[in-house]
Amino acid sequence: MALSEFDLIERFFSRQHQKNRSVSLGIGDDAAVLSPEPGKELVVSTDTLVEGVHFLQNSDPASLGYKVLAVNLSDMAAMGAEPCSVFLALTMPVADQPWLQQFSDGFLSLAERFSVVLAGGDTTQGPLVITVTIIGQISAGKAMLRSGAKAGDRVFVTGTVGDGGLGLIEAKSETGESTESLEKYLRPEPRVQAGQKLARIASACIDVSDGLAADLGHILERSEVGAKLELESLPLSTSVKRYVDLHGCQEFPLISGDDYELCFTVPEDCLDQLQAIKAELGCDITEIGKIVATPGLVVTRAGKEIILNKPGFEHF
Amino acid sequence: MALSEFDLIERFFSRQHQKNRSVSLGIGDDAAVLSPEPGKELVVSTDTLVEGVHFLQNSDPASLGYKVLAVNLSDMAAMGAEPCSVFLALTMPVADQPWLQQFSDGFLSLAERFSVVLAGGDTTQGPLVITVTIIGQISAGKAMLRSGAKAGDRVFVTGTVGDGGLGLIEAKSETGESTESLEKYLRPEPRVQAGQKLARIASACIDVSDGLAADLGHILERSEVGAKLELESLPLSTSVKRYVDLHGCQEFPLISGDDYELCFTVPEDCLDQLQAIKAELGCDITEIGKIVATPGLVVTRAGKEIILNKPGFEHF
Repeated sequence: MALSEFDLIERFFSRQHQKNRSVSLGIGDDAAVLSPEPGKELVVSTDTLVEGVHFLQNSDPASLGYKVLAVNLSDMAAMGAEPCSVFLALTMPVADQPWLQQFSDGFLSLAERFSVVLAGGDTTQGPLVITVTIIGQISAGKAMLRSGAKAGDRVFVTGTVGDGGLGLIEAKSETGESTESLEKYLRPEPRVQAGQKLARIASACIDVSDGLAADLGHILERSEVGAKLELESLPLSTSVKRYVDLHGCQEFPLISGDDYELCFTVPEDCLDQLQAIKAELGCDITEIGKIVATPGLVVTRAGKEIILNKPGFEHF
Repeated sequence: MALSEFDLIERFFSRQHQKNRSVSLGIGDDAAVLSPEPGKELVVSTDTLVEGVHFLQNSDPASLGYKVLAVNLSDMAAMGAEPCSVFLALTMPVADQPWLQQFSDGFLSLAERFSVVLAGGDTTQGPLVITVTIIGQISAGKAMLRSGAKAGDRVFVTGTVGDGGLGLIEAKSETGESTESLEKYLRPEPRVQAGQKLARIASACIDVSDGLAADLGHILERSEVGAKLELESLPLSTSVKRYVDLHGCQEFPLISGDDYELCFTVPEDCLDQLQAIKAELGCDITEIGKIVATPGLVVTRAGKEIILNKPGFEHF
C-alpha cells in the first residue's frame, strides 16, 4: 500500500521529543508558529543537497540525514546564532521505509544534540533533493557578518582544513576504509558553540564549505579588503599532511571544500579575549594570516607568492 | 563561461527593491537576519514543487515563478499571517539565463505585490526542484489553526472550487486556449487579505491544495469533529459547472486540487462579523456546510448521502 505524505511525516519525523521555547506550534498545520525571545533577532539560512552533485549516489542514509542538518547548523555557527528550529523539504523517488528510518535517525539525533526542533517541512516524490531551512536567534545587532573585516585584523580558522576534501576523495575511491578524513567528510562537526562565543569579538566570519580560499574571498569582497595567508600556517591533520606531501599539492587544503570549519577575523585589541575563548572551547583555533587594505588574497609559501588554480566549488 | 552560483543569485534575484521592516539583512551572507515586531509570532511554511509531479515539464517559467510563491503565500493566508520574507531553494539542470529571467520576473513581481522580501536561498545544479520557505508574522496567539473547529460552526470557502483541477486537465490537453480555469491553475490568487481578516473570527482554517474534501478532512481530524456538506452549495465557476454536467462527475470540485482557496469554520455567534468582512473583501465567501460532533465527512446531493472515490492528492 502506498504511504500518504502525511503518514510519512507522521511516522518518521514526529518521533522527536525535543522542545525549544521558541517553537509554539510544530509539524501538522499549514505552518509552524515561532515565538522568538524579546530582544532577539532571527537568523535564517537555506541549503540544498542534490544526489550526485553534493553527495554520492547510494550514500549511507544516516550520514546523509546528519550532514544535511550539519551544513545548516554550520551557517548558524558562522553567524554566531543559537539554532532553534529547522524545516526539512525532502524529495525522494520512493517512500523507502528503511531508508527513511535511517535518514531520520541521523537527522533527529543531531537535532537533539543541539536542541533544535524539526518544526515543519514537505515530503514530495521526485529525484533525491534535500533542502533544509534553519532558524536561529541572536541578540539584536550581534550577528557576525562577512562584511566587517578591517586591515590589521588577524585571520583564524577552527579545527583543521582539507579533511573534508580528502574524505570526499576517499569516499569516491570506495576502499571501504574508515579514516578520520572520511568521517569528517560524512559527519562534519558544526562549530555552533565556537560561533556563539566568537560573536563577541570577531569582526567577520564565514563557514568553510567551498574551500578556505573561496570562502575567505567572500569575506574580503564584502569587507572590501585583502588578506595575506602563509600556506605553512594552515592547520592540517596527519592524513592531509601525508596526502599533500605525497601528491605535491600544497594548495589542496586551501581549495578543497566540505570542511565546515569557521574562518574569522579578529581585531588586534581582542586577541587576549580570543585566548580566553580558546581555553573554553574544545576545538583548536589557528592564526593563518592577516587582513590588509589592498584587495585580493595573497598566499605565500616559504615567503614566495603562489598562484591558486581553482577558486573553490562552483555549482555551474 | 559557466556562471557561478553567486553570479546567478546576484544577477536574477537581487533586482528586488522591495523592503520589509522585518528584514535586517537579506541575500549575500551565510544567513539572513530578521527583526520581528515586538509582540508578534512568526509563521513559517515550506513547500516543494517538482517538475513532472507538481507542474508539467516545460512549464512557462514566469507562471512557475509566480506559482511557487503563490502556494506558499496561500499557507500564510491559511494561518491569517502577514507574509514578510521568503527563501528560494532552486535546483535546476543548467543555468539557462532566459529561463531564469522569466522565472525571477514571475516570482519577484508577486513578491512585490505582497511586500515580501526575497531574503535568501540556494541555487544548485540538478533536476528541476523548487523549495520555497516563507516567513510571516501575526499577533501572538492569533494564528488560525486546523484544530479549532467545534460542532455547530458553519463551514465556508472563498472564491470557487474545481477551477484548479479543471485548469490542470486543460494544461495537459495542450489546446493552447487560455481559459479562466487554466489561468487559475497557473496563477492562483493567494487569499492573503482574506486570511488576515478571517483570523479575527474563524475557529479553524486551511488552504485548499489537495482538494476540498481532503483538506477539510484535515480540519476535522485535528479538531476531532465531523462535517456535513451539501454538494449543491459548492461555489462553481461557469466552466466547472459545464465540465461537471458534461461528465456527470458532481464530486469533481470536492476531490480536485490546486484551488488555493481558504476553507474555514466560523462559530454561529460570529456570523454577523463575517458579513462585515465579506463586504470589505473583494472575494466571494460561500457557506457550504456545518460542523457536527460525529467524526467523518458526510456529503449529500439532493438530500442523499454520496460516497467520495478519491481522497485527494497523495504524493506516494
